[in-house]
Amino acid sequence: MANRDIRIILAGPRGKMGASARNLIANTAHFSLVACLDHKPATETHFSEGEVPVYTDAAHCFSEVEADVLIDLTTPRAAKNHLETALDHHLRPVVGTTGFTDDEIEQLREKAETKSLGAMIVPNFAIGAVLMMKFSQMAARFFDDVEIIERHHDRKLDAPSGTALKTANLISGVRAEKKQGHPDESETLEGARGGQVEGIPIHSVRLPGLVAHQEVVFGGSGQTLMIRHDSIDRGSFMPGVKLAVETVMTTKTLVYGLEQIIE
Amino acid sequence: MANRDIRIILAGPRGKMGASARNLIANTAHFSLVACLDHKPATETHFSEGEVPVYTDAAHCFSEVEADVLIDLTTPRAAKNHLETALDHHLRPVVGTTGFTDDEIEQLREKAETKSLGAMIVPNFAIGAVLMMKFSQMAARFFDDVEIIERHHDRKLDAPSGTALKTANLISGVRAEKKQGHPDESETLEGARGGQVEGIPIHSVRLPGLVAHQEVVFGGSGQTLMIRHDSIDRGSFMPGVKLAVETVMTTKTLVYGLEQIIE
Amino acid sequence: MANRDIRIILAGPRGKMGASARNLIANTAHFSLVACLDHKPATETHFSEGEVPVYTDAAHCFSEVEADVLIDLTTPRAAKNHLETALDHHLRPVVGTTGFTDDEIEQLREKAETKSLGAMIVPNFAIGAVLMMKFSQMAARFFDDVEIIERHHDRKLDAPSGTALKTANLISGVRAEKKQGHPDESETLEGARGGQVEGIPIHSVRLPGLVAHQEVVFGGSGQTLMIRHDSIDRGSFMPGVKLAVETVMTTKTLVYGLEQIIE
Amino acid sequence: MANRDIRIILAGPRGKMGASARNLIANTAHFSLVACLDHKPATETHFSEGEVPVYTDAAHCFSEVEADVLIDLTTPRAAKNHLETALDHHLRPVVGTTGFTDDEIEQLREKAETKSLGAMIVPNFAIGAVLMMKFSQMAARFFDDVEIIERHHDRKLDAPSGTALKTANLISGVRAEKKQGHPDESETLEGARGGQVEGIPIHSVRLPGLVAHQEVVFGGSGQTLMIRHDSIDRGSFMPGVKLAVETVMTTKTLVYGLEQIIE
Repeated sequence: MANRDIRIILAGPRGKMGASARNLIANTAHFSLVACLDHKPATETHFSEGEVPVYTDAAHCFSEVEADVLIDLTTPRAAKNHLETALDHHLRPVVGTTGFTDDEIEQLREKAETKSLGAMIVPNFAIGAVLMMKFSQMAARFFDDVEIIERHHDRKLDAPSGTALKTANLISGVRAEKKQGHPDESETLEGARGGQVEGIPIHSVRLPGLVAHQEVVFGGSGQTLMIRHDSIDRGSFMPGVKLAVETVMTTKTLVYGLEQIIE
Repeated sequence: MANRDIRIILAGPRGKMGASARNLIANTAHFSLVACLDHKPATETHFSEGEVPVYTDAAHCFSEVEADVLIDLTTPRAAKNHLETALDHHLRPVVGTTGFTDDEIEQLREKAETKSLGAMIVPNFAIGAVLMMKFSQMAARFFDDVEIIERHHDRKLDAPSGTALKTANLISGVRAEKKQGHPDESETLEGARGGQVEGIPIHSVRLPGLVAHQEVVFGGSGQTLMIRHDSIDRGSFMPGVKLAVETVMTTKTLVYGLEQIIE
Repeated sequence: MANRDIRIILAGPRGKMGASARNLIANTAHFSLVACLDHKPATETHFSEGEVPVYTDAAHCFSEVEADVLIDLTTPRAAKNHLETALDHHLRPVVGTTGFTDDEIEQLREKAETKSLGAMIVPNFAIGAVLMMKFSQMAARFFDDVEIIERHHDRKLDAPSGTALKTANLISGVRAEKKQGHPDESETLEGARGGQVEGIPIHSVRLPGLVAHQEVVFGGSGQTLMIRHDSIDRGSFMPGVKLAVETVMTTKTLVYGLEQIIE
Repeated sequence: MANRDIRIILAGPRGKMGASARNLIANTAHFSLVACLDHKPATETHFSEGEVPVYTDAAHCFSEVEADVLIDLTTPRAAKNHLETALDHHLRPVVGTTGFTDDEIEQLREKAETKSLGAMIVPNFAIGAVLMMKFSQMAARFFDDVEIIERHHDRKLDAPSGTALKTANLISGVRAEKKQGHPDESETLEGARGGQVEGIPIHSVRLPGLVAHQEVVFGGSGQTLMIRHDSIDRGSFMPGVKLAVETVMTTKTLVYGLEQIIE
């Protein structure tokens, strides 16, 4: 292991996300996996990393193993404990779950700053989706009219998607209220004009053969601007994980969301 | 004028469609404009073809001018009279209006066949849109799931568009009834899943900067097939007019709709 | 097993295609898997169907098991033998390989007709891709100008894709030769206008995050028509397999290629 | 005229751009047209504003008419003179031409700052295109692979477009050099992989029915991010003109390019 390598402990090494993360670490020249943290010992599971020790207790793991970053892909409940314990052991946490209250985030930020350690909580690691939302928010300052079309596989239960709702909210936060379309517009077929969030129509397409896609279309006189994200597997989260790991190595506070570090 | 030219009388030479048609004839090597039929004499209007006579009476025009085809871009009321009068004068009519009853069409077809003359009534000259509908109908035999997204400028009053409704009807005519999406799917935002025609969702997008666009998306296991038509001006009708003119020269009956002559 | 079920023997039950086919049969109400044909006995392989017998000899299998259709997903060499043996045992073959000579196809067709049995050889089971090619050929009669943009993952070695070349050839077969673009057009950057097949530009995009996609764009005055196929996994072949199985039950000759049975 | 209105002198009121600008001013509540500057007197031209005076001499116009902003849509030669004269008369110039040298820009900037006046030189008023380039540059920091597909009408002489080249240059300025695609990739058809700018492939599509379109596609593991701009008429420049007018009212220096004021 070279001196400049970032030494990583991975919590939640199994499952699709865990396997992708192990793959990311193995394929990134300056990343090294030094231990795993799992809720079952390695001997009891199908998972076997072979070359790194597997721990079931966070404090025990962080005491014994020298590392720089904790990547935590476990459940919200476990992640809160891991995040705090990591900071106590001078380990920079990258946590990929939601469910923290504003108060909890504030306390964790203070702790990170006191210890001069970087930390990230990332509800959405899909850097492409995060960029799509960021760009949409920026474009909304220059275009008054926008619609969102999101497309997912037909096993999805809810419509619209969480990402579509979040995008609409981000856009409505920066634009003046607007009644789009013709003032006398009418639906001869109910629902044709989509669902409305603060005057922004959202259309949800559900078909087999799709995975997870969204386009945000802005319209102005004589032109349209479209930002589109297509995600076809969990691998799409890994560039965001990589970015977060690199970020916690250089910041000295807690950052919430990838959108904060995109300039 | 060469012997093999198709000699054309144009009814409705003014307006956007008329101007496009004059342009089409001027730019097609084997088409020749020999007269115009207008509801005002040339001297009273801004329109002046210069080189061809302008008539206000159909029978008078068709008696005096030797021609092969009448292109009629007038109103439904005028077109019915012109179509019949044309056949009486051994002229092959291409009529671009709707509003004929089934009975009227049947009578006109008999007349055309009696006279051994080609004739066409074409509600939609946009060959691209006609192909989109034809292909959609064909694809529906092989894909159980489909959604339609149509996009128009924000001055359009009705949603969905007539073309979207017609496409959905054509598709539902060839497929077994189907409840698409997840059986337990729910809308957390009313209208997000679009309007439904026989179980086919239609989504209507309205933005400035758009003109007239439609995509029909079929989904199957691991794949999607999309047919998309984008129309940005009336010029898009001219290839359909050209095809209709060439068709009436070789058929000996009345044909209703471009879709009948696409193989 | 209901009387009306189609009883299927599957040759090549392992691998991605084999697993997809077993899945298709299990999920199609009127399909029943009655045996598998493999080059290793079940006891020697990881594959174990559990409920159906696995044979290693085709003639032996076809003699012992009563069935309607053979789905063959093996190698070209094995498939030829299986196809002929199947017809000898009054079994309708659906073969998913290439590599048959015109003479071989002709002889097999005669045999199928003599026995009054349906048979299909299908070089490409992706019904979406086959429809895209068929529609492109149809549209080319009405639009003089067309370009092809195909997009694949960046591990693909060759550019353009075989499907893009085949599409261009099918289109050029039905249209008059055409020099597209402005007569005085020039490339200030070599390659910008793509590769040319009979005057049809083909553009090959290679990016991580893509799988296999192609769009065929036709342009005419004021309009464009686009046909696009997106394929994200092998599951995309199964609707074509299903269609072929249903076809061999009702035809009494050998059919080469899915495009022959699309109307 | 309300107190808070922005009073505008328009130089170059004729032509498509001029007509669009008059339209913009008429339709913007807080904009007022107070005079036009033309190279021919109103009496000699088809242009007649009716309600505002038309001048042929800049200094004369700027002395007599009280105004806030000059919108200049004339030629590069005229614009330089107008820009300087405007600043001399305490008028904030918005100039829509290229052709200024770095030295000229620097001198004009000093003059604007000395007078505490806002000024803008805008080579490209199409805010959608400017945003597309800005977003592409931002996304390039997070995605290593990108290709550009630009589409224009088939009367365009050069390929690729200036916007495509500029976009590629902006992207290559922020990313490490990269050989995209498979290392052993080969073109079986020359040109299929497009033209290359610093390793970024550009593909130029030319078809009738298109106007001016560009998509920039970024690819990463399991995902793609696309930014697309479609422009169908000169009206697409007006939101950029509006933004520039509002900007010069609040800045006290010369700004070059809309991209400088997008945050």
